[in-house]
Amino acid sequence: MTYKVDLNCDMGESFGVYKLGRDEEILDYVSSANIACGFHAGDPATMHQTVRLALEKDVAIGAHPGFQDLPGFGRRNLHLSAQEIYDIVVYQIGALSAFVNAEGGILQHVKAHGALYNMAARDAVYAEAIAEAVYDVNPALILYGLAGSELITAGNEIGLRTANEVFSDRTYQKDGSLTPRSEANALITDSSEAIARVVRMVREGKVMTLEGIDAELKADTICIHGDGLDALAFAEKISASLLKAGITPTKVSEIV
Amino acid sequence: MTYKVDLNCDMGESFGVYKLGRDEEILDYVSSANIACGFHAGDPATMHQTVRLALEKDVAIGAHPGFQDLPGFGRRNLHLSAQEIYDIVVYQIGALSAFVNAEGGILQHVKAHGALYNMAARDAVYAEAIAEAVYDVNPALILYGLAGSELITAGNEIGLRTANEVFSDRTYQKDGSLTPRSEANALITDSSEAIARVVRMVREGKVMTLEGIDAELKADTICIHGDGLDALAFAEKISASLLKAGITPTKVSEIV
Amino acid sequence: MTYKVDLNCDMGESFGVYKLGRDEEILDYVSSANIACGFHAGDPATMHQTVRLALEKDVAIGAHPGFQDLPGFGRRNLHLSAQEIYDIVVYQIGALSAFVNAEGGILQHVKAHGALYNMAARDAVYAEAIAEAVYDVNPALILYGLAGSELITAGNEIGLRTANEVFSDRTYQKDGSLTPRSEANALITDSSEAIARVVRMVREGKVMTLEGIDAELKADTICIHGDGLDALAFAEKISASLLKAGITPTKVSEIV
Amino acid sequence: MTYKVDLNCDMGESFGVYKLGRDEEILDYVSSANIACGFHAGDPATMHQTVRLALEKDVAIGAHPGFQDLPGFGRRNLHLSAQEIYDIVVYQIGALSAFVNAEGGILQHVKAHGALYNMAARDAVYAEAIAEAVYDVNPALILYGLAGSELITAGNEIGLRTANEVFSDRTYQKDGSLTPRSEANALITDSSEAIARVVRMVREGKVMTLEGIDAELKADTICIHGDGLDALAFAEKISASLLKAGITPTKVSEIV
Repeated sequence: MTYKVDLNCDMGESFGVYKLGRDEEILDYVSSANIACGFHAGDPATMHQTVRLALEKDVAIGAHPGFQDLPGFGRRNLHLSAQEIYDIVVYQIGALSAFVNAEGGILQHVKAHGALYNMAARDAVYAEAIAEAVYDVNPALILYGLAGSELITAGNEIGLRTANEVFSDRTYQKDGSLTPRSEANALITDSSEAIARVVRMVREGKVMTLEGIDAELKADTICIHGDGLDALAFAEKISASLLKAGITPTKVSEIV
Repeated sequence: MTYKVDLNCDMGESFGVYKLGRDEEILDYVSSANIACGFHAGDPATMHQTVRLALEKDVAIGAHPGFQDLPGFGRRNLHLSAQEIYDIVVYQIGALSAFVNAEGGILQHVKAHGALYNMAARDAVYAEAIAEAVYDVNPALILYGLAGSELITAGNEIGLRTANEVFSDRTYQKDGSLTPRSEANALITDSSEAIARVVRMVREGKVMTLEGIDAELKADTICIHGDGLDALAFAEKISASLLKAGITPTKVSEIV
Repeated sequence: MTYKVDLNCDMGESFGVYKLGRDEEILDYVSSANIACGFHAGDPATMHQTVRLALEKDVAIGAHPGFQDLPGFGRRNLHLSAQEIYDIVVYQIGALSAFVNAEGGILQHVKAHGALYNMAARDAVYAEAIAEAVYDVNPALILYGLAGSELITAGNEIGLRTANEVFSDRTYQKDGSLTPRSEANALITDSSEAIARVVRMVREGKVMTLEGIDAELKADTICIHGDGLDALAFAEKISASLLKAGITPTKVSEIV
Repeated sequence: MTYKVDLNCDMGESFGVYKLGRDEEILDYVSSANIACGFHAGDPATMHQTVRLALEKDVAIGAHPGFQDLPGFGRRNLHLSAQEIYDIVVYQIGALSAFVNAEGGILQHVKAHGALYNMAARDAVYAEAIAEAVYDVNPALILYGLAGSELITAGNEIGLRTANEVFSDRTYQKDGSLTPRSEANALITDSSEAIARVVRMVREGKVMTLEGIDAELKADTICIHGDGLDALAFAEKISASLLKAGITPTKVSEIV
């Protein structure tokens, strides 16, 4: 039997003179790129260049909207109304779409960034506002969300295709949620272990939790990181390991 | 014989708690609305509400991109490369388009704002960058520009429909350019005189210049202002006066 | 017996072309002005003009730092580390101080704005970060805070003079906290009732709570609002009413 | 005979997650640090850390104000009024001063950044606005400017101490101005040649121009760059070479 999974990475997070991430090289190993839209990171020039690079390397493109918080890189919790969430997501999808259209591509998906992603995983109001924004801009877009989270529920309910996302470098709890970063054992630092866990998630739909029992979860797409010293080496290794395990990295639009 | 002309007004220039302009009332008198896109003014919430209002009142919608200069309201000259101009215009058109799409409307046109508009009227590099951006996002969009300016030339050359814009409250020089605001006699403050001049521009394609001779110019669309104490009264008066003179305010897409 | 109380108002909250508040007129009735520092509102030009106006009218000047959230006017909760709070407060005090120095004045106090103020009223970590920032920039500054709140505690502990602030237009709960705006009965809309309550707070140190029993609280300074239609009328009325009740509006530096 | 010269470097130009420059290491070789103030680069956290580092290494601190243009890193020409220039300079000096005060240091100087520096070198209106802002905040501050430029003239006229700045990596024209970067021969890429020229500027007050004749200029301070691959190596080399040539790197406050 063959398996498929999407490998996604956040990209286009440079800003002006500030460079972040090894986008060009990472694009050789992923099937989908989440491109920042100018609110938490990215600027028009960076968005344009990143879209062009992704199209050249035949990597599917997603909008990666975040809070309007450049000083905090969109990682700080900000309390907005449902309408405010809706509006900032519509805006950012539109801005990125224009570059994709101008370059002759198609926007595949939307993945919220940082604190917006995390808040929407737990909070139905945030989740529904995002799902509604995505649907209203284009119902053919695929909504990424933490596997089994409120965001996936909200996307499914409104009629979007959704992609359950799993994290190779994080541990899980018995309810299927990620162990908060503030706790010990939240991170998996050994790359071989991280990859073995991901392979099992894809093939068996299971992950061993910190409590020592399996949790079930669906793994449509795996998040890998584009910055950090080892980003490129890890991207290469996970890509090769998946293939060896009979799992083909595939754009999420061909999976869900 | 009957004449047609578009009446356009800048809108959606509020920001957060800050309110500017009497958009809702002005919309009763204009045929096209240029909606700010968040760079010189406007924010996602304001854009959304303004798009909805314009659609309710059957007013055609345009994107109104400007420099990323909220403190200066996009009125301060900023020197960018052609690529930077292109990218900020694509971004802003896209952001506004998403709200128009989400509300079931169609984007009609693009009109640059403030210093970007003025620089592109004179500078072919700026003009071409804007025209190219508009064309690449959607070649069906109509490009507004100062009548007879570099922006109109650049739009025509790339294959866009263009709308020559005239100003009711400004005097002209014999080469068809606006008298700079820094000079005396730049502004026309009497509303009846302003309207009489506009009527002649539409019907005869001529305007009396400061030098006392006529200049020829094409008047596809008239700019009126949405802020200031008399904005609403002037909008009402010019709208009624045009009708009386046999000129029907008409969306620019039905003119050019 | 005579009483003294400070009347303070938030000011300098215009931004670029956007005008907010009736600063110049309100300054005739208050003893202290809290001037926005460019993060939630205000810009260098507005800060400069507002400082000059306050000095002309002999009104004491305070820095009014907020979250870096212009789209939300600093009213949206943002989760920052203690270090981040400290740094944004130091920055903003410094920026305003420079204008005060350049105009030959003296900075009297610091009052946090909006969500930063509210979060610091309840959260000791926020409160201590603010108190420490104020102290480190200049230990002679007076720290404003909600009467009896964590911010007052933190200020006192570090060795700052503090000013307990009361609100004329808000109801209180039996623990001395403000009734959340989300609840009915949070606001007092009758200006005479509002003023009578404030007079009692100043003279007796008591306020009737929603539960029908008195809460004790210290009233060093009263917050009045500078925007809204009735701001000016209310400022005039409360100023006159206090005098009639034997209470002299006085800069807080002469009270605490 | 012994000579003294200040070695200065722009610093604190990181922003949020974005890191720029090798500040900590460069500080070992310079006598003065120009710290970005949050407009073209820098944020409160970065400013704080950079101030602390400079004090630890006994390097004199200057404010490095720029245009409010983070996307363009303050390198794009922006046309402001004299009042706007004045206000943004006062604001930024104040913001940085607060960190310097909080850490127990003293602010030595002000050096404008990028396009603001270049425009003020040639434009007396810009130059006077900057000089006035610096003087009004604190007349003891030293104003840096391109050697012999309008900025130096304006500083001297208002009564500030000024520091004539020379560039080791740029060629000069016979009027003492820098060759524009747009021209061939603008840059000196050989570090030994760059250093030899600087040594001559300090010792003889002369530089060989592109026209092959000497121009006279005063060299109080030398600008070196903190980013780029070779920044650290060059800092080390120029520092050592100056000492060998009998020139002691010295804080500018001990020179002018």
